Amino acid sequence: MNRQQLIEQIHAKKSFLCVGLDPDMDKLPACLKGESDPVFAFNRAIIDATLPYAVAYKPNTAFYEAYGLKGLTSLQKTIDYLRNKNVFTIADAKRGDIGNTSARYAKAFLSEEGGFNFDAITVAPYMGSDSVQPFLQEKDKWVILLALTSNAGSADFQTAQDCPKPLYQKVLEVSKQWGTPQNMMYVVGATKADMLEEIRRIVPEHFLLVPGVGAQGGSLEEVCQKGLVKNDIGLLINASRSILYASKEADFAAAAAQEAARMQQQMSLYV
Amino acid sequence: MNRQQLIEQIHAKKSFLCVGLDPDMDKLPACLKGESDPVFAFNRAIIDATLPYAVAYKPNTAFYEAYGLKGLTSLQKTIDYLRNKNVFTIADAKRGDIGNTSARYAKAFLSEEGGFNFDAITVAPYMGSDSVQPFLQEKDKWVILLALTSNAGSADFQTAQDCPKPLYQKVLEVSKQWGTPQNMMYVVGATKADMLEEIRRIVPEHFLLVPGVGAQGGSLEEVCQKGLVKNDIGLLINASRSILYASKEADFAAAAAQEAARMQQQMSLYV
Repeated sequence: MNRQQLIEQIHAKKSFLCVGLDPDMDKLPACLKGESDPVFAFNRAIIDATLPYAVAYKPNTAFYEAYGLKGLTSLQKTIDYLRNKNVFTIADAKRGDIGNTSARYAKAFLSEEGGFNFDAITVAPYMGSDSVQPFLQEKDKWVILLALTSNAGSADFQTAQDCPKPLYQKVLEVSKQWGTPQNMMYVVGATKADMLEEIRRIVPEHFLLVPGVGAQGGSLEEVCQKGLVKNDIGLLINASRSILYASKEADFAAAAAQEAARMQQQMSLYV
Repeated sequence: MNRQQLIEQIHAKKSFLCVGLDPDMDKLPACLKGESDPVFAFNRAIIDATLPYAVAYKPNTAFYEAYGLKGLTSLQKTIDYLRNKNVFTIADAKRGDIGNTSARYAKAFLSEEGGFNFDAITVAPYMGSDSVQPFLQEKDKWVILLALTSNAGSADFQTAQDCPKPLYQKVLEVSKQWGTPQNMMYVVGATKADMLEEIRRIVPEHFLLVPGVGAQGGSLEEVCQKGLVKNDIGLLINASRSILYASKEADFAAAAAQEAARMQQQMSLYV
């Protein structure tokens, strides 16, 4: 999916919601325990319930790898199920390696041949340009580079104050030369919304993928006020746990739909 | 495998060689093409041939993920095959995420339950302490943190000169508080051997995993002269392509053994 198609979907649904598909076996509703693949059954129900309110879906690979080959089979079924639903799909994989190795990850996550064929993959910036470039070679495929993450540990290096400018700003400034707003986005945690004005000064156009609204405590309003790009919106706001586990009973899908609709309604004020 | 056991193996084999198991379907010898799982057949032959000369094996996950579920099945068989061979096993996965998500990766790669159960995993430092801590919770399991990588892109952030000290040094100084030389190692590329004295000033005891000797051009002698820790050795020097593809014909295993033996002989001068 290219930038124009993504923006069209955002306007059509009046939503820039991304649903994080991070299934936790211990939290799945009891009614799914009998399914042959409870993780996929859960994802499918969540997707069906939230599709009117969401433009993007983001499975985090850790939640599948933790269940071994079985988990990765559930991931494969999930990405296959998302195809032809006209949504933007993100492998939240945080990969990155030397060039010839990153090319393998690009094949795994962004190509038909590799199997998963997502629209985008999250990538860690530590290894620099040649670790990111291989992900930018396919048409209409995206890198979403970690810039400013939502966790406490982001203070260790990303926002540390011992340099002329903090690392996350340097990552934005250097890396925006590697691609374009048509094939790069950035991860910016909602818990750091006070830094969004500075970020928009550096990358006025790029889409930002914003985790940390909901369970992690970030504010949707503040993110929109400071991060929105006029007309193009330029934001994908992710919610995982607050939607997936809105109810842990048999009504989990309806509860997920309700929570997604609530967020979409807030977002519709800005679209 | 704990530090003492690793050092014992190094002294027993007079080697600190790590073999990178990065199988590339396009480079496999023609004689393996008929196997039901050519990647595992290749790995098994390489392991059998190099076992007298190597103390560690390091599959890079990208080379398996690129072949989808089939590739991950080959990885599972490979780690199962390495068990009980008294070698140190490293998942070169370069993972790292917010705490509850890193815990999933730890389960996937460092636990019996997850399936892979390696001794160690490579981790990217960008997200800071709480992204690394979950990997340090299991007894005798290791984090190998990226410090100074062997690729050209390491100049973008790791060695950039705009701060009082370069990022790779800050990563070493901050992160050595997170664990101990008993459960943390660092990736330091052999192509940056001139920085090893500075690195040893910061982490005098920690093991260093050193890629970049061989195909990438780093010097084994220089790494040993500057990086060795007296008695404990403190180095694992990785070679992948130079061993795996020493020959692309039916004699590939014998050629791999010969190249591994050549490196072991050089190493034996230091043990």
